[in-house]
Amino acid sequence: MELLSFENPVFVAYAIAAAIMVLKAVAMSWLTVVQMVRFKGGYRSPEDIRKTPINPEPHAGQLAPDERVERIRRIQLNDLENLPFFFMAGLLYVMTGPSLLTAQLLFYGYVVSRLLHFVAYFTAQIHDVRAIFWTIGSLIIVYMAVASLFHAL
Amino acid sequence: MELLSFENPVFVAYAIAAAIMVLKAVAMSWLTVVQMVRFKGGYRSPEDIRKTPINPEPHAGQLAPDERVERIRRIQLNDLENLPFFFMAGLLYVMTGPSLLTAQLLFYGYVVSRLLHFVAYFTAQIHDVRAIFWTIGSLIIVYMAVASLFHAL
Amino acid sequence: MELLSFENPVFVAYAIAAAIMVLKAVAMSWLTVVQMVRFKGGYRSPEDIRKTPINPEPHAGQLAPDERVERIRRIQLNDLENLPFFFMAGLLYVMTGPSLLTAQLLFYGYVVSRLLHFVAYFTAQIHDVRAIFWTIGSLIIVYMAVASLFHAL
Repeated sequence: MELLSFENPVFVAYAIAAAIMVLKAVAMSWLTVVQMVRFKGGYRSPEDIRKTPINPEPHAGQLAPDERVERIRRIQLNDLENLPFFFMAGLLYVMTGPSLLTAQLLFYGYVVSRLLHFVAYFTAQIHDVRAIFWTIGSLIIVYMAVASLFHAL
Repeated sequence: MELLSFENPVFVAYAIAAAIMVLKAVAMSWLTVVQMVRFKGGYRSPEDIRKTPINPEPHAGQLAPDERVERIRRIQLNDLENLPFFFMAGLLYVMTGPSLLTAQLLFYGYVVSRLLHFVAYFTAQIHDVRAIFWTIGSLIIVYMAVASLFHAL
Repeated sequence: MELLSFENPVFVAYAIAAAIMVLKAVAMSWLTVVQMVRFKGGYRSPEDIRKTPINPEPHAGQLAPDERVERIRRIQLNDLENLPFFFMAGLLYVMTGPSLLTAQLLFYGYVVSRLLHFVAYFTAQIHDVRAIFWTIGSLIIVYMAVASLFHAL
C-alpha cells in the first residue's frame, strides 16, 4: 500500500486534519474582513480610506488599529506560526508508517487543540488558558518532527 | 499511475502553480530589500543603523516605518496568510484524482488571482479591487479543502 | 523506487532538513515565551495583564514592545517568510529525481544557512552578516523552484 494515498487510513486522518486546519486558517482572513466591515475600521493601507461602495463614508481614523480587528490578526499570526509546521511534520510522520490509533490521536488532537485555542483567544480568556491549548498543539508538532527525524536517521 | 508524480498531468499543473507561487513569495522578500536600499529606510532592527558598506551613512530615522517598504511587507504578509494553505489544499486535491481541466482552472486561476492581487496592491488601487482578486484565490482554497475533506470522509 | 518514500535517499535528506527546520521554527515560539516570562513583558493582548500564576504582579507596561521579545518575533517572522517555501520547493525538487549529492548540498546547505542566520540575528550582528546567510537560503529556494518548474514544463 502506498503511504501517500487515500487508501492509507493514516493519510486519510492527516487529510481530514489538514483540510480542517486550512479552512480554519482561511476563516481567520474572512473573520478579519467581517470585523473591519462591521466596525468600519482597522484598515492598514492609505488607499483603504478612499470612498468605495463598501466604505461609503471614509475617514482617517479608520487606519488606526482597532482591537476587535487586531485580535483576529493576532490569532491569524498564531496560525501562521503553527499550521505550516503541522502540515510539514504531519506529512513526514505519515511517511514513517505509524499506527493508525497514534496518528489519529495526534492529528485530531492537534485540530481540537487549535480550535480550543481559537475559542480561548477570541473570548479573551486569561493568557494561561490559551497557553495550555497552544502548548498541546506545539508538543504534537515537536513529537511528529522528532519521530520523523529518528525514522530518517 | 501514481497521483504524486510528474507522470500525472494534474500533479504537473500543481507543480507549475506551486513553483510560480514560491517564486512570487520569495520575490516579495527581494522587493522589500530593494525598497529598503532604494529609499535608505524602513529597517527594523537597532543594529541595522550601524555603518556598513551597504548603509554607509546610517541615521536613527532609518528605523521609522517607510510606507514604500511597509506596503511590500503587507503584500508579503498577505502571501503568508494564503500561499501555505494553497500548497496544502492543492496537494490534498491532487490526491483526490480530479479531472485535469478542473484542476488546471483552479491551480492556474489561483496563480492569476494572486498576481493580479499583487498588481492591485502594489499600485495602491482601492480596497475593493484587490479584495476581488483576494476573494477569488481564497474561494479556490476553500473549494479544494472542502472537496478533499468530502473525499476523505 | 517511489520518489516520496524513506527508501529514496533524496527524500531522506529532505525529511531530515524539513524536520530540523520545523523544530527550529517551533523553537522560536518557545524562545518568545521564554523571553516574555524572563523579562516579564512584551505581551500583546489586553487580557495578558490579568493576574495569573505565571504573571502574579501584572502592570500595563507589560503590553509595551520589549526589544528582547520583539527580536525573536522578527526572527520568527523571517522563518515564516522562508520555511514554508523551502518545504514546498524542496518537495517538488525531490519529485524531479535529482542527484543525491546535489540534493544533499541544497537541503543541508539551507539548514546551515538558516541556523547561521539565527545566530547572526540573535546576537545582533550587523545587517550585512545576516543578509548573507538569508541570501544563501533564499537562492537555494529559488534554484529548487526554478528547477522544478523547468522539469514540469
